Amino acid sequence: MSGKNSPDCLPKVVIIGGGFGGLHAAMGLSRADVSVTLYDRRNYHLFQPLLYQVATAELEPNNIAFPIRKILNHQKNCDVALGEVLKIDLAQREISVNGGQVPYDYLVVASGARQSYFGHDEYRPFAPGLKSVDDALEVRRRVLLAFEEAEWEEDEKSRQAKLTFVIVGGGPTGMELAGAIMELASKTLPSDFHNIDTRCARVILIQGADRLVPTMPEDLAARAQKVLEKAGVEIRLNTLVTGVDETGVSIGEEHIAAENILWAAGVQGQTVARTLGVDLDRAGRVVVGPAMALPAHPEVFVIGDAAAATDAATGNPIPGVAQGAIQAGDFVAQIIREDVKGKSAESRPAFRYHDKGSMAMVGRGNAIAAIGKTHLGGFIGWLAWNLVHAMFLIGFGNKLLVICQWFWNYVRHSRQSRLITGDPEVHIKTLRNK
Amino acid sequence: MSGKNSPDCLPKVVIIGGGFGGLHAAMGLSRADVSVTLYDRRNYHLFQPLLYQVATAELEPNNIAFPIRKILNHQKNCDVALGEVLKIDLAQREISVNGGQVPYDYLVVASGARQSYFGHDEYRPFAPGLKSVDDALEVRRRVLLAFEEAEWEEDEKSRQAKLTFVIVGGGPTGMELAGAIMELASKTLPSDFHNIDTRCARVILIQGADRLVPTMPEDLAARAQKVLEKAGVEIRLNTLVTGVDETGVSIGEEHIAAENILWAAGVQGQTVARTLGVDLDRAGRVVVGPAMALPAHPEVFVIGDAAAATDAATGNPIPGVAQGAIQAGDFVAQIIREDVKGKSAESRPAFRYHDKGSMAMVGRGNAIAAIGKTHLGGFIGWLAWNLVHAMFLIGFGNKLLVICQWFWNYVRHSRQSRLITGDPEVHIKTLRNK
Repeated sequence: MSGKNSPDCLPKVVIIGGGFGGLHAAMGLSRADVSVTLYDRRNYHLFQPLLYQVATAELEPNNIAFPIRKILNHQKNCDVALGEVLKIDLAQREISVNGGQVPYDYLVVASGARQSYFGHDEYRPFAPGLKSVDDALEVRRRVLLAFEEAEWEEDEKSRQAKLTFVIVGGGPTGMELAGAIMELASKTLPSDFHNIDTRCARVILIQGADRLVPTMPEDLAARAQKVLEKAGVEIRLNTLVTGVDETGVSIGEEHIAAENILWAAGVQGQTVARTLGVDLDRAGRVVVGPAMALPAHPEVFVIGDAAAATDAATGNPIPGVAQGAIQAGDFVAQIIREDVKGKSAESRPAFRYHDKGSMAMVGRGNAIAAIGKTHLGGFIGWLAWNLVHAMFLIGFGNKLLVICQWFWNYVRHSRQSRLITGDPEVHIKTLRNK
Repeated sequence: MSGKNSPDCLPKVVIIGGGFGGLHAAMGLSRADVSVTLYDRRNYHLFQPLLYQVATAELEPNNIAFPIRKILNHQKNCDVALGEVLKIDLAQREISVNGGQVPYDYLVVASGARQSYFGHDEYRPFAPGLKSVDDALEVRRRVLLAFEEAEWEEDEKSRQAKLTFVIVGGGPTGMELAGAIMELASKTLPSDFHNIDTRCARVILIQGADRLVPTMPEDLAARAQKVLEKAGVEIRLNTLVTGVDETGVSIGEEHIAAENILWAAGVQGQTVARTLGVDLDRAGRVVVGPAMALPAHPEVFVIGDAAAATDAATGNPIPGVAQGAIQAGDFVAQIIREDVKGKSAESRPAFRYHDKGSMAMVGRGNAIAAIGKTHLGGFIGWLAWNLVHAMFLIGFGNKLLVICQWFWNYVRHSRQSRLITGDPEVHIKTLRNK
């Protein structure tokens, strides 16, 4: 199963996952005397922070997702394989993938995270999450269909339920979804519907903590809340969801009738990490040592959203954001490079996380950004957000294209990607059975 | 169910289908004293001639598909509804849709066509057609997965079957698919795969007639054949497929081992037209009179791919192309406008088709075009093809974007849309069970 081009004598590095962590680990090994194989269950690298824009019809999947194979095609010592790693055998030093066993000398687990329903997986069918391109297309389908159905619904109560959007989770993704759906309903769609006023749509953002985006500075969170509320988003803080079904969301005694529920509340590690048989934290993330390796297996690294890691100096957990994965990927590549040259595992440095700041989109022409001690908001924040996010996109043409798209959407309130895809036999069933 | 804004006193026009025919019929009625409702099972108008480029990773769906609602949003007398019309009742003058009955005074059936397997629907799972966005994404998934699987296939024979693409049907779509897949394999992908030479892929184009694109002039067909053969496409003329299954395609005694079979061989009318209870031709199209109406029901028109119509002057069948539908849509709108003003059905003019020419893409920088007596090929043909096809796309920004994309793809051999979407649990099953 190993790459036919790679000499058998070189140390074999297997990387699981083509997100930011896995890609950076692979690229950091480009000049090392190792043979690398990167496995992913999808053929593309996904820039997750922009996924909500695919879900809300602003961008297309190919703007934010890129074939891993294409990104790494010039790296001679790296093979890319499509496949889902089902099991990791630490003792035998091999992984199970595509019906066979693949041995490794070094393993980098960068398998990422999936949506967590905090033990309530029964919510999933009624409240899709937002982790993959297909999730985003499903959310888009539901959001756009809601308006189509409401247009022809004659019962007042049912119509309002179809036009009610509940977003569970007040982190960046939840906040961004709420702002974007509100804008869709209040600015983009009104002229397209003749029988309903889409501006009557309710967007409700439910947050368990006492404020939005707890990972960002408090003044920015307050600022974002004000902007969202002014746009019409109903924000419920200190609120825990106690039930989700096809009729809506329950919050203790209260029931919100809503046909559109989106889940942006939490993540957990992918199942493959569980097959390691080592300590996991409550969110299913692998507890790693200061050099991002397993304590008993210095040849196995876990990085990014798959890892529960702490900064060696501050003791703070490393946040589950792109920068955390990128820096860890670069770091483990460096460790492996030195290891291969003969440096001992004991002398490895400890990982230090450099916080480059955080940002989140609030609404049209409005974002919040914390860069060091500088706190930005409003239009300046929006420009910073666009600039930084475009930098991370792959390909010069694509960067330019997406920036033009954002500018166009900003000026025109337009949304270029309003297609409801998928089998109409399935999605117009609800219309038919009315 | 009718639009709440439309006064009940106006004649009701119901249009089934938002393709070129239905859209033009609706737009032609914008100033008429009628109330129009257009039904489509999808929320988008699709520019089918470019669908093959979505299938071959050159364009994204939103480049060639546009929300019908958005196209018609300024037309006050026209409502748009998502829904599948299940039945037409000519006697009661009503249609069954979304669980209810909708009455009409005039009905325009522009429901289009779907792939025909000539009585062999059992071929369908192994040989997808190309009629919708979802079809195109399925073809894209299969084509890209074929290379992913071949990269890790160790058995020589299986690898060749995975790298063999059979396209059934030598009309414009089949020819365009063959050329585009050949280019993908020979120019775009080679550097991305380290274990296989994607240039070893076989692309076989099977055509029943004695030449390609029989609807186009013979000299252009010959020219296209030469170009495709030079690029490496194997063309089999006068060849009928006698069997299709998961192992490949049978042609009489011969069996071609191929894991990728695409069907571009024929079309038939949508099932809703069958509920009319009137004469259909062999392809399930409704036989209409000279004014595109049903002989016994002058208030019911059938246009575009749904109709078997002939040009009143020449007696030639009206071809199933965009121009045929556009002109018929404009024509029936005109008839209805005059009807409403009191003109009698007997004095209706007969439909005359104006052939504006035909064109087809052959390969990179190469297309054939017949415009009147002028026959173009090669790069000039390619420029003409791009210009004409871009003109039909909706939105200035989109036209510009697609032209830039084509130019970029031409110069760089690149393909921006190489994502394999859909549930990985399904599509990597084959890899896992190897």
